[in-house]
Amino acid sequence: MRIFIVYANPEPNSLGAAMRDRSVEVLRAEGHEVVVSDLYAMQFDPVARGDDFQERRFPDRLQYDREQKHAVREGAFAPDIRQEIDRLFWCDHLILQFPLWWWSVPAILKGWIDRVFVNGLVYGAGLRLEHGGLKPRSAMLAFTTGCYPEMAGPGGLLGNMEASLWHLHSGTFHYAGLSVLPPFIGWRVRYSDGDPREATLDAYAAHLRAMPEAKPYAFHISSDVGADWTLREDVAPINAAYAREGWRL
Amino acid sequence: MRIFIVYANPEPNSLGAAMRDRSVEVLRAEGHEVVVSDLYAMQFDPVARGDDFQERRFPDRLQYDREQKHAVREGAFAPDIRQEIDRLFWCDHLILQFPLWWWSVPAILKGWIDRVFVNGLVYGAGLRLEHGGLKPRSAMLAFTTGCYPEMAGPGGLLGNMEASLWHLHSGTFHYAGLSVLPPFIGWRVRYSDGDPREATLDAYAAHLRAMPEAKPYAFHISSDVGADWTLREDVAPINAAYAREGWRL
Repeated sequence: MRIFIVYANPEPNSLGAAMRDRSVEVLRAEGHEVVVSDLYAMQFDPVARGDDFQERRFPDRLQYDREQKHAVREGAFAPDIRQEIDRLFWCDHLILQFPLWWWSVPAILKGWIDRVFVNGLVYGAGLRLEHGGLKPRSAMLAFTTGCYPEMAGPGGLLGNMEASLWHLHSGTFHYAGLSVLPPFIGWRVRYSDGDPREATLDAYAAHLRAMPEAKPYAFHISSDVGADWTLREDVAPINAAYAREGWRL
Repeated sequence: MRIFIVYANPEPNSLGAAMRDRSVEVLRAEGHEVVVSDLYAMQFDPVARGDDFQERRFPDRLQYDREQKHAVREGAFAPDIRQEIDRLFWCDHLILQFPLWWWSVPAILKGWIDRVFVNGLVYGAGLRLEHGGLKPRSAMLAFTTGCYPEMAGPGGLLGNMEASLWHLHSGTFHYAGLSVLPPFIGWRVRYSDGDPREATLDAYAAHLRAMPEAKPYAFHISSDVGADWTLREDVAPINAAYAREGWRL
């Protein structure tokens, strides 16, 4: 399999860097091809702006998604975006690896999504969910957090981790047509020297080796809803985000 | 009230810019003091890195949150961060205004959170949830989206909008001690000329005028959980993220 790791961590001597190295080693040993985009090392610019396009359809007023669509047709993306799009479409499986900051990806990685998941290729008219532009690829999050698993499990003080990740798993991966594999979570990582570091690396290696047997998450698709965009009566909601009763209990 | 608007939009002639101008006008007319940080205009750098600190406790290896804590003690933040921290603690109410990109904030605004919501002042040891560093302030999201409300309501194809916003409402605002007011959502905004534009601006103005009567969202706090970090038996989960049955239905 072709695996594309998008890695975001500001410290070359971090646990995250060790996880990246270990993952490359493990995945290659399993026979996969691996490409890494190290966003900090590349000094990747996460800020979406008009300069992202070498030619503009509407030069007077930036409408970012329409310019993306235009740039797909005209081959007009800035070179840093073009490279990442090429890697994305090259791969069979995408891994986003990062430290969890404010229950999401660091800004440098959010900007990679903003700029590389382009309208007209990844999403847009006719490109969504089961018809998303990245189908039939799969994707996975791999992150560390200081949080304890009990805090983010059923009935946990901070709410279920699945709720925090919904914008990434459903809103980004599933929306773009990616099949979503269960994340690797390095829990209760603090200042990562000694044993917890090794334990996290070993757990990550095991998670990666087990990936071929991993069962993708289930999400609803267009045929599950009626003309009103809500689940048909005969369709049972898969998870709490889809509950007919709404969000508040 | 002192209101701090953090605004992220790459186009000065956008609906977002018109919303920002309208909000400043309406809020001042209501007697509030208003300060705006226009992140694109400021060329705000969203990438967290070692240069964010004028002095380092651990110069050899960046541990971002520990350096934040150290910089609080030593007054060692880079000037762009210092300014935003000052504005944040000056305000009574924080508004983040942006176009919704991938069910979250644009990277430039995510980086504002990463760099300005600092350990040792906003969160950290003894600073969380009901003891969060930003208490007793309140906060609100204001954003536009191409999504239709039915797609992101109960039983909606894309899951409930509250699930998508959980990382911001709970994971960021509530975690930092901010009371969370209901968001303003400009739904089904496409290429925003003509009437829908005016309707969105008017709806936003009405939302802002009604803010003093808005009821903050409910979240669980530390006294709701036992030593295992999960809700005590006598506490009813407030919303789907806290469900004892877990996330999958």
